[in-house]
Amino acid sequence: MKVSIVMGSISDKKIADKTISILEKFGVEYELKVISAHRTPYIAVDFAEKAEENGIEVIVAIAGKAAHLAGGVLAGITPPLPVIGIPAKSSTMDGLDSLLSVVQMPKGVPVATVAIDGGENAGLLAVQILSVKYPELRNKFKEYKVELAQDVEKNESRFKI
Amino acid sequence: MKVSIVMGSISDKKIADKTISILEKFGVEYELKVISAHRTPYIAVDFAEKAEENGIEVIVAIAGKAAHLAGGVLAGITPPLPVIGIPAKSSTMDGLDSLLSVVQMPKGVPVATVAIDGGENAGLLAVQILSVKYPELRNKFKEYKVELAQDVEKNESRFKI
Amino acid sequence: MKVSIVMGSISDKKIADKTISILEKFGVEYELKVISAHRTPYIAVDFAEKAEENGIEVIVAIAGKAAHLAGGVLAGITPPLPVIGIPAKSSTMDGLDSLLSVVQMPKGVPVATVAIDGGENAGLLAVQILSVKYPELRNKFKEYKVELAQDVEKNESRFKI
Amino acid sequence: MKVSIVMGSISDKKIADKTISILEKFGVEYELKVISAHRTPYIAVDFAEKAEENGIEVIVAIAGKAAHLAGGVLAGITPPLPVIGIPAKSSTMDGLDSLLSVVQMPKGVPVATVAIDGGENAGLLAVQILSVKYPELRNKFKEYKVELAQDVEKNESRFKI
Amino acid sequence: MKVSIVMGSISDKKIADKTISILEKFGVEYELKVISAHRTPYIAVDFAEKAEENGIEVIVAIAGKAAHLAGGVLAGITPPLPVIGIPAKSSTMDGLDSLLSVVQMPKGVPVATVAIDGGENAGLLAVQILSVKYPELRNKFKEYKVELAQDVEKNESRFKI
Amino acid sequence: MKVSIVMGSISDKKIADKTISILEKFGVEYELKVISAHRTPYIAVDFAEKAEENGIEVIVAIAGKAAHLAGGVLAGITPPLPVIGIPAKSSTMDGLDSLLSVVQMPKGVPVATVAIDGGENAGLLAVQILSVKYPELRNKFKEYKVELAQDVEKNESRFKI
Amino acid sequence: MKVSIVMGSISDKKIADKTISILEKFGVEYELKVISAHRTPYIAVDFAEKAEENGIEVIVAIAGKAAHLAGGVLAGITPPLPVIGIPAKSSTMDGLDSLLSVVQMPKGVPVATVAIDGGENAGLLAVQILSVKYPELRNKFKEYKVELAQDVEKNESRFKI
Amino acid sequence: MKVSIVMGSISDKKIADKTISILEKFGVEYELKVISAHRTPYIAVDFAEKAEENGIEVIVAIAGKAAHLAGGVLAGITPPLPVIGIPAKSSTMDGLDSLLSVVQMPKGVPVATVAIDGGENAGLLAVQILSVKYPELRNKFKEYKVELAQDVEKNESRFKI
Repeated sequence: MKVSIVMGSISDKKIADKTISILEKFGVEYELKVISAHRTPYIAVDFAEKAEENGIEVIVAIAGKAAHLAGGVLAGITPPLPVIGIPAKSSTMDGLDSLLSVVQMPKGVPVATVAIDGGENAGLLAVQILSVKYPELRNKFKEYKVELAQDVEKNESRFKI
Repeated sequence: MKVSIVMGSISDKKIADKTISILEKFGVEYELKVISAHRTPYIAVDFAEKAEENGIEVIVAIAGKAAHLAGGVLAGITPPLPVIGIPAKSSTMDGLDSLLSVVQMPKGVPVATVAIDGGENAGLLAVQILSVKYPELRNKFKEYKVELAQDVEKNESRFKI
Repeated sequence: MKVSIVMGSISDKKIADKTISILEKFGVEYELKVISAHRTPYIAVDFAEKAEENGIEVIVAIAGKAAHLAGGVLAGITPPLPVIGIPAKSSTMDGLDSLLSVVQMPKGVPVATVAIDGGENAGLLAVQILSVKYPELRNKFKEYKVELAQDVEKNESRFKI
Repeated sequence: MKVSIVMGSISDKKIADKTISILEKFGVEYELKVISAHRTPYIAVDFAEKAEENGIEVIVAIAGKAAHLAGGVLAGITPPLPVIGIPAKSSTMDGLDSLLSVVQMPKGVPVATVAIDGGENAGLLAVQILSVKYPELRNKFKEYKVELAQDVEKNESRFKI
Repeated sequence: MKVSIVMGSISDKKIADKTISILEKFGVEYELKVISAHRTPYIAVDFAEKAEENGIEVIVAIAGKAAHLAGGVLAGITPPLPVIGIPAKSSTMDGLDSLLSVVQMPKGVPVATVAIDGGENAGLLAVQILSVKYPELRNKFKEYKVELAQDVEKNESRFKI
Repeated sequence: MKVSIVMGSISDKKIADKTISILEKFGVEYELKVISAHRTPYIAVDFAEKAEENGIEVIVAIAGKAAHLAGGVLAGITPPLPVIGIPAKSSTMDGLDSLLSVVQMPKGVPVATVAIDGGENAGLLAVQILSVKYPELRNKFKEYKVELAQDVEKNESRFKI
Repeated sequence: MKVSIVMGSISDKKIADKTISILEKFGVEYELKVISAHRTPYIAVDFAEKAEENGIEVIVAIAGKAAHLAGGVLAGITPPLPVIGIPAKSSTMDGLDSLLSVVQMPKGVPVATVAIDGGENAGLLAVQILSVKYPELRNKFKEYKVELAQDVEKNESRFKI
Repeated sequence: MKVSIVMGSISDKKIADKTISILEKFGVEYELKVISAHRTPYIAVDFAEKAEENGIEVIVAIAGKAAHLAGGVLAGITPPLPVIGIPAKSSTMDGLDSLLSVVQMPKGVPVATVAIDGGENAGLLAVQILSVKYPELRNKFKEYKVELAQDVEKNESRFKI
């Protein structure tokens, strides 16, 4: 298991699905968990403590509102593992509360924050981080980049006369 | 020990002092601790777990930036104890990040939030909460209210002709 | 009557219902009132003055926009009673106006603010405050916390393979 | 006494002075009071109730943070008198909290809001309102407008070559 | 004609209707105009110049986005007449752009700003301003205030057991 | 005179100086004026009406707070001339009020907005606009761009080992 | 080809259509392209490098979220050509992220920013810029301005009695 | 060279120094460069193209205002390398413009964003990312975490009685 995707709530599943589709595209093993920093704090602590020995190399944490999952527990307890945080847009505040709660971490506990609801980019960032170690992912990423460019060019060609 | 004041960082001491001055005025026992949800997560968990049996009745948590102390650990682990959160203004964002990180808690884990840097009001709220149980605090609060009004009237009289 | 829920307008009923469902779950007596700080100021003053002698121990105030109910009248006149404020999201500004109007109280008049539209958490905070005095509520809260965790774990198990 | 200037706190005196300098320039009678909606609510209610019979024709209310003075008590109790609200910039939030707390009044209770810390404009608005009744103020206002224009033109001439 | 309601665009008609319903309730004469500070600047200037001699006593200006109508032209040219500004919520920015463009007027040119989309309160403020001169409006306002209170009490009674 | 720089107030001189230093560097003729949309509206209208026949080809307008100068009068009356707007940071709101008041113009009246206090960029944009007509400015701009790059490289070289 | 409209993504087509309808109305030649600063950076660089020699005189760039198209590549590489930026409202943050990413350009690289989703105004600004060189566009712009005013007056007449 | 720190401007040096002090503490090789996406776009492209073959494994990009460095060029051109973005607080907007410009990246081009001015956390995140590949960094990180905790406990002990 290389990547662990942890949602604060089942309502974040749609965002997680975007991360999963990227990880599957790149053939990266992952697990998906629902852990609440507030409602199941001991499970959160336990997960964080064992993450490294369980072979997890990158954690992706999704959380909304005062989004404490990424920062409060996971990033605090799993020091050597990079934690990617996805701020989830909740029913109010347009995601600004989640964004600030995830990105504005104090010194000593970084969370690699992506855009609000940015499930794909969290997956891509996980791949980039893993590709530091696994060279085959670098090559896949370059192919993916070419695909992206081709999509843009395909749209472009629709306007050519 | 009735109230425990927990700061995320030593830099929050000035805010804590405002809370302390209120608690001392009302003769409420308190303790002051520096516990970081991120840098000393196990101490935070340990503190939260033993708070009730240690006789603490109200927790006041001060934290800045992505302020996870109040919510992330204390409010998650100490369910029956009311947790008062003071968002601390940090060097940027004018305290908005702290405010949203403290107040926008998900369902199930309330944090009683006061104004940014609102040390006095956190102390007064702690007194009000304790006064539900201890009637003598109610009377002291009424006297305090009279004092407040007299201060205003004293200022007022300076403009009378 | 232990808790009085006061709405600034009938349109806040949906938020109040969330608070009520928590209070009923915990078996806490409550009353529900519509009082406008602006349209029925004398009723508001009268309510606030008699709240303590009527046996109310905690007030929950819900208000939108420039949300003066919690702070302007109730918190000003009922000094020893803790006042919990719920900022209500109105048709514009995403609730930011209500949040700031409720939480940014001046020194001397705290309002224990919960998240925007945070009806459940207001109920839970009321229960926590009452549990300082009533030990049986502490036990119920611990049971509730276990239920919350089980809900999360139930969702979690759906992803187990 | 035509205009009553009411500050929520002595710290608002500098803003009030700007209003006073305008009123004195236009020869409008005024009084200056310190009344706290939260710390002296009964004085606030009493003031609001007697404002009309005391001959006050316009109220100017200055308040910071969750600025309940203008809206919470004065505008609620003194229905026929226009209430001008000046949001005061407090030590954090750049005045946004005060602005939203003053201007976002619910239906039925208008507060005529001017810019943050806008003492002069509050005075000028009071003069404009009074000039609906007192024609001599209209003429003075026109003269004042000419002065303002001349100031601008004087600055302008400094750049002429 | 006592009140002139000026919309920057036909799309503001719904807000104007709220102002009109208040003015009609109080029996205040009004006119409704569409004038764009940007698209018909000369008509705006002409309107503003003749407003006083046309017997207009209060102007209500509605404008969205960078809302220059109230401030840019009307308040600049009609010095002695009070100008009430209603910020209109446009399709983006939740009305914050309109609010700041209307309320943050520079020294010398006040605009009496009400809440975003606050058509009723603009009407009520116009009535309050006129009632400084016309005593019969004061009495009508007091009756209106009683009605408002009765509405609240009627809702209140629905919860009585 | 190719460019007219118009300030809403003498306090904007520091920003205008940045624009001037760019225009002088490029040898573009300019004039500097203080015109207030609110305090000298007729001068503003007169200036805008005669701008084209006076040979002005680009207008740069600087204004703070509810910044109506660029939009309210100049852009409304001088249709064919491009108007560049510089939002000026005022004493509160960090320039957000000015930015929204300048950039959020309604359909039909564009203002080419640059960054808050962006005096240099307003000058450079004026040069770019003029260079559509005057080819010699294009060449100067390319030289300027080279200079900019050299400045960066000079800083860069300080870190080379 | 006088104007090149460049979209960061096919989803910005609706905004581009507004710009196109203006350009067609004024008879200004244009091209429409989809170029992503991030997904097709080399195409973006190539486009920017050849824009001038291809006879493009004004670039209109549309981009959402962290909107780097206008600034990051086009404005950096095409120094003498004026670049108009349209911030596109994305699914969250109400366009504030796009607005700040487009307008807050550092010194040396101006982007002429119009309102969020302001496709028409971008077109009109392009016309104004071109009209510095092409006098016939000036005349067309004056006619357009008359049309705009007539539209307003037509609406106005609907309220006349 | 494992980490390349790229500043958009020499004024970001203070933030870079915080990143450097972390990298030196962990013994991670780094280089420091000043590259402007806008003023030296070709150098930026060249740097990004050769980063991988030059042995760089993580890029740290610092940029203020409409912060295009991290996203606009580096993240667009260096697909497989993780890019960490530090939003720099500029003279206005409190860093919100930089934060949104860095974090709100479109799909396909992630930037791992840390807090505003968060130089240390960028360094720590770089170390965490490298530690996926280099196990010795994991151990150093654990030691660092212990140090952090000891600092907190040292402060804590000052309050012990």
